Amino acid sequence: MNRNDVTEKIVAAKRQKGLTWDQLAAAVGQSKVWTAAALLGQMQMNETEAAAAGDLLGLTPEETALLTTVPYRGSIGQTVPTDALVYRFYEIIQVYGTTFKAVIEEEFGDGIMSAIDFSMDIERVEDPKGDRVKITMNGKFLPYRRY
Amino acid sequence: MNRNDVTEKIVAAKRQKGLTWDQLAAAVGQSKVWTAAALLGQMQMNETEAAAAGDLLGLTPEETALLTTVPYRGSIGQTVPTDALVYRFYEIIQVYGTTFKAVIEEEFGDGIMSAIDFSMDIERVEDPKGDRVKITMNGKFLPYRRY
Amino acid sequence: MNRNDVTEKIVAAKRQKGLTWDQLAAAVGQSKVWTAAALLGQMQMNETEAAAAGDLLGLTPEETALLTTVPYRGSIGQTVPTDALVYRFYEIIQVYGTTFKAVIEEEFGDGIMSAIDFSMDIERVEDPKGDRVKITMNGKFLPYRRY
Amino acid sequence: MNRNDVTEKIVAAKRQKGLTWDQLAAAVGQSKVWTAAALLGQMQMNETEAAAAGDLLGLTPEETALLTTVPYRGSIGQTVPTDALVYRFYEIIQVYGTTFKAVIEEEFGDGIMSAIDFSMDIERVEDPKGDRVKITMNGKFLPYRRY
Amino acid sequence: MNRNDVTEKIVAAKRQKGLTWDQLAAAVGQSKVWTAAALLGQMQMNETEAAAAGDLLGLTPEETALLTTVPYRGSIGQTVPTDALVYRFYEIIQVYGTTFKAVIEEEFGDGIMSAIDFSMDIERVEDPKGDRVKITMNGKFLPYRRY
Amino acid sequence: MNRNDVTEKIVAAKRQKGLTWDQLAAAVGQSKVWTAAALLGQMQMNETEAAAAGDLLGLTPEETALLTTVPYRGSIGQTVPTDALVYRFYEIIQVYGTTFKAVIEEEFGDGIMSAIDFSMDIERVEDPKGDRVKITMNGKFLPYRRY
Amino acid sequence: MNRNDVTEKIVAAKRQKGLTWDQLAAAVGQSKVWTAAALLGQMQMNETEAAAAGDLLGLTPEETALLTTVPYRGSIGQTVPTDALVYRFYEIIQVYGTTFKAVIEEEFGDGIMSAIDFSMDIERVEDPKGDRVKITMNGKFLPYRRY
Amino acid sequence: MNRNDVTEKIVAAKRQKGLTWDQLAAAVGQSKVWTAAALLGQMQMNETEAAAAGDLLGLTPEETALLTTVPYRGSIGQTVPTDALVYRFYEIIQVYGTTFKAVIEEEFGDGIMSAIDFSMDIERVEDPKGDRVKITMNGKFLPYRRY
Amino acid sequence: MNRNDVTEKIVAAKRQKGLTWDQLAAAVGQSKVWTAAALLGQMQMNETEAAAAGDLLGLTPEETALLTTVPYRGSIGQTVPTDALVYRFYEIIQVYGTTFKAVIEEEFGDGIMSAIDFSMDIERVEDPKGDRVKITMNGKFLPYRRY
Amino acid sequence: MNRNDVTEKIVAAKRQKGLTWDQLAAAVGQSKVWTAAALLGQMQMNETEAAAAGDLLGLTPEETALLTTVPYRGSIGQTVPTDALVYRFYEIIQVYGTTFKAVIEEEFGDGIMSAIDFSMDIERVEDPKGDRVKITMNGKFLPYRRY
Repeated sequence: MNRNDVTEKIVAAKRQKGLTWDQLAAAVGQSKVWTAAALLGQMQMNETEAAAAGDLLGLTPEETALLTTVPYRGSIGQTVPTDALVYRFYEIIQVYGTTFKAVIEEEFGDGIMSAIDFSMDIERVEDPKGDRVKITMNGKFLPYRRY
Repeated sequence: MNRNDVTEKIVAAKRQKGLTWDQLAAAVGQSKVWTAAALLGQMQMNETEAAAAGDLLGLTPEETALLTTVPYRGSIGQTVPTDALVYRFYEIIQVYGTTFKAVIEEEFGDGIMSAIDFSMDIERVEDPKGDRVKITMNGKFLPYRRY
Repeated sequence: MNRNDVTEKIVAAKRQKGLTWDQLAAAVGQSKVWTAAALLGQMQMNETEAAAAGDLLGLTPEETALLTTVPYRGSIGQTVPTDALVYRFYEIIQVYGTTFKAVIEEEFGDGIMSAIDFSMDIERVEDPKGDRVKITMNGKFLPYRRY
Repeated sequence: MNRNDVTEKIVAAKRQKGLTWDQLAAAVGQSKVWTAAALLGQMQMNETEAAAAGDLLGLTPEETALLTTVPYRGSIGQTVPTDALVYRFYEIIQVYGTTFKAVIEEEFGDGIMSAIDFSMDIERVEDPKGDRVKITMNGKFLPYRRY
Repeated sequence: MNRNDVTEKIVAAKRQKGLTWDQLAAAVGQSKVWTAAALLGQMQMNETEAAAAGDLLGLTPEETALLTTVPYRGSIGQTVPTDALVYRFYEIIQVYGTTFKAVIEEEFGDGIMSAIDFSMDIERVEDPKGDRVKITMNGKFLPYRRY
Repeated sequence: MNRNDVTEKIVAAKRQKGLTWDQLAAAVGQSKVWTAAALLGQMQMNETEAAAAGDLLGLTPEETALLTTVPYRGSIGQTVPTDALVYRFYEIIQVYGTTFKAVIEEEFGDGIMSAIDFSMDIERVEDPKGDRVKITMNGKFLPYRRY
Repeated sequence: MNRNDVTEKIVAAKRQKGLTWDQLAAAVGQSKVWTAAALLGQMQMNETEAAAAGDLLGLTPEETALLTTVPYRGSIGQTVPTDALVYRFYEIIQVYGTTFKAVIEEEFGDGIMSAIDFSMDIERVEDPKGDRVKITMNGKFLPYRRY
Repeated sequence: MNRNDVTEKIVAAKRQKGLTWDQLAAAVGQSKVWTAAALLGQMQMNETEAAAAGDLLGLTPEETALLTTVPYRGSIGQTVPTDALVYRFYEIIQVYGTTFKAVIEEEFGDGIMSAIDFSMDIERVEDPKGDRVKITMNGKFLPYRRY
Repeated sequence: MNRNDVTEKIVAAKRQKGLTWDQLAAAVGQSKVWTAAALLGQMQMNETEAAAAGDLLGLTPEETALLTTVPYRGSIGQTVPTDALVYRFYEIIQVYGTTFKAVIEEEFGDGIMSAIDFSMDIERVEDPKGDRVKITMNGKFLPYRRY
Repeated sequence: MNRNDVTEKIVAAKRQKGLTWDQLAAAVGQSKVWTAAALLGQMQMNETEAAAAGDLLGLTPEETALLTTVPYRGSIGQTVPTDALVYRFYEIIQVYGTTFKAVIEEEFGDGIMSAIDFSMDIERVEDPKGDRVKITMNGKFLPYRRY
């Protein structure tokens, strides 16, 4: 048994038990996005969080223990994602890659937005012309060190 | 002369004239992010916008005209970006790809966040532990059509 | 058991029971192309549709339930398809890629044909010199948002 | 001077002279899609067609002659297209690849839709909820030869 | 069980029973090359052919039935083949790619040699300096359609 | 000036002077296929052959001299060819790769068909249902050495 | 003129003037490694640093100004480096990739060593059996944020 | 059973028994980094070392014996690593690749830092602004042989 | 069971029985290098050779029979090898690729060194400064055929 | 002017002046293979060697100086070489990769054959059945360091 097997079991258990990410996040005590990422095998839970999630999802102790290990990250197994929903984010990088760089660097100087000291929220924005997905990324600016 | 040549000239002219994206956006009459993307060769300007930008940047009429053509999009020329700032966004897709999918689909059903009917903002959030980059993406949810 | 296992079982059951896509589509209540795509693991069925299909094909409840989940799309597992029938469509993109772009943009302005708000039909056209395949794609034009 | 240089000059001349694909197609005497493909370097014109196009676009005799040569096809220079409009067609192959195969083969038997004995039309379909792009592909079915 | 499993079993059975491609082709009633391609999972047999082959090779009814399905073609699972015998054909394309194009097009005009309405023979040519492999490919010329 | 420049010049000169491969081959004194391959930069001519070809095509002495150098082979500059005519040969390898191997090895034992001690002919075969391209490859069988 | 042109000129000027990285670093007022990286187009200099470097190397004002722009990083233009010296570092990642992960995470918990708040030194260590290269990397540990 | 299976079992056993790399290294009698690399399948242990490690981790004799075989190296199974911690080292190569080359060659002449006669240490450096990872690589300089 | 399974079993049996390549080669009656290549699944043994090897290694008749089949060659499963020992040979091609070509062609004319009519030896050369690996490749020169 | 330009000029000058690698090697005072590699841009000459070569080939002082710089190695610009002569060496790695590893490691233990402390010779071996190319590689064995 490895981390991927647990991810597959979690996805099936969530479906069979009719659980939502909000319910799982409430039990775990973290945000919905982080909880989903952790249960999909991309973040490390502590023992309390893993126990709460394992309990709701009906995982064995061994499976629950795997939730507390550090994952080897990379959820999609493809260089360019084929799924349309995931691809759109790749497309945003292709179109806005140089814009991200130009606007952030003009504002902050030479550096990056951290993807580690980073949080994200995904919300629904109601709109009469069709509801919208609003994604807020929030990452610490890290300036390049000079030495 | 093609669109890439104009992009390179715009980047140089902006540096030599000490222009900011805010100044260019004000002249163009669109947001800072959209204006930067357009001047970096990823969005199509109308003639008024192109004229305003060309004026500030000292472009020739031929160069200005190229700003009004539809670009073949793709700003980074690499499948996996090597630049650290741009790569972090690719890393976010690798880590959160299945999370984007799971959370958006639970909320909206089967579909995608549009990257076309889409806007984005990039802001500085002051923080005593180090300022942060806040990126807000806003895209229409498009449900898969059944037929 | 995952979605791919169900797809493989569906293909075998369809062959063994001598079912046609038209029969399956009639039971499901959607078009032939959409029904085939859904049963091949690329579209999400609702519970009624899944039940009808599962019934005809002899699927277990667990297998039938998987038809109602959102698939991670990508049916061919190859960047450039090796199968001759599928490759021809890739060839059409290589030959007509810039033509699609030039003709659609002249007619509609800057934007795309949606692959989400999209339907497709595949028909036989009788022809004394050899019957022809007629494919009709119909996708909403989505203009790039300016902001 | 090679074929790519001529393509680039044609795109510029068309923009500067305000010509449409319909006008060029009328002069050439073929359909709009075929004419665009030919002028974008993917189809071979005969001498009359090339002369008519060269005349309208202001090409030199040498440039006009290149329109009558057989092109080495492949218009996008990328394995997976980065431009959003062109990518959507690639996405359709990823999603519908096995569906194309399953539906065509059930109807016709083992074989392919020709991409050579092939024509295509691109039309606007008016729709109060947003106009739609309708693409009709029409290719001869070619059965695999048994020997 | 899928088509690849059957291919593997056929290769083993042929070896264990000491059958030759000629014997299999005689039983099937098609040429040696086509029969080998079909039994290696690249061509579709009809029911009589499959029965004859399955009989000789000792296949089960389910395995025999799989020989009558249309295969997803692509026998080597590699973009550039590593096996020396197969690679030499790839090398011929690298060296003669533009020659194929130039000579066929001068003779026939713009079009292709079909790989579908196509047959092939592989023969031994005795030669005192070392026997030679003679391969004869025969494919219908298909001219590009103009429309 | 390098070999590629000469190839490009030869293609243009052949078109402008209306020369055929047969005429060039007659002057060079080798077969049509070999001559085309050599003039397209894939075979090495001796000085007499190069002089004859250079004369007909109007090459400079420096250009003619380059025809006598050994080329770095590889005519298509792509791993998987995008041009339809060239791709069909790649498709033949994908479909018949394991068949080439199985049939040649049953006949000859373990070894390859040489692509060096190799010749090829390309002919037109008249056929009322559409003329056909016949390609004959003839390569020495080379058995793997045991030691 | 772009950043790559300046890099190429700097490399040539350094050779022709017999300058060392130590001399350049002393003039610039930063460490040898950082200075080399900056002059090779991977770090951004401030105006004083650029002026000092430009003076020693004989750069024009325009070239000097380019040293103060933020570079698009990626110095080797290859996914897997072909040069033996650079490749050895890639080999270290292939061999020690999981070790880096296992040892750092046991010591620090889930997170990364920053490549931004990062410095590096390269030294010679004398050794009678052959001198050794000692590389010291020093990067801030960044824990994954939980939210 | 192969080496990868043993690696997976070692990772699980280490977690279940609460062993640290330091404890394993003490038992094995080598450094922490080398011991981790060996137990993760990248270095060859001698029999005493393997016995000590196998004992602590509860491996079978067959599993212990596999630790004494030479591994086929390559721990990450990806050309460009997707995990953030491992990727940062790849990023260092992209940014500093030409700097490594320029600085080492100025100091030592033409050659490489060996990745075979090589050792590495990974340490924690306490820092009030956030602890740091310090990595020391030490490889013999190997000059290119002239002959 | 396929050829790869047998290779894996042979490697394990050789280790468990403490056999050397020299002992296996003596039993087989061929050279050490050829015997190793054959037992690692890259050369075809005759029945006597396979029987001798199978006997020493304790293979079943079915496994022994697989040693007499022609393998699909390609031992490393990677385009660029990650293992350091194997990579060094790839590096030699990257560095000496054009040298091989230039020196062989000056000596022999246009052609290749055969990798089929080819033998190789690997020896230890004692040297007080460290023993050396001596590899001797011996391949027939094959001139390109002119026709 | 960069190193590639000099390589191209050297190749042309050698041809025009009718120089052989042996003559160049004699002037340079190193072996034929090393000299060819250096003049083809893969090895660094000292000033005396560069002067001797530059003299014979008619290089300018600037060009001659470039021969004394350390090259960024990698002569073929392709991951898998397309030229038949160079490809055969790649094929040898594909076939014998695991054999190199198994035989060297049995003889020497865990380590590599150096490609840096390495020399090579290429000779003609006369043979009535066709002359042969003999390549002798000689590299120091480097054992993996344990620490």
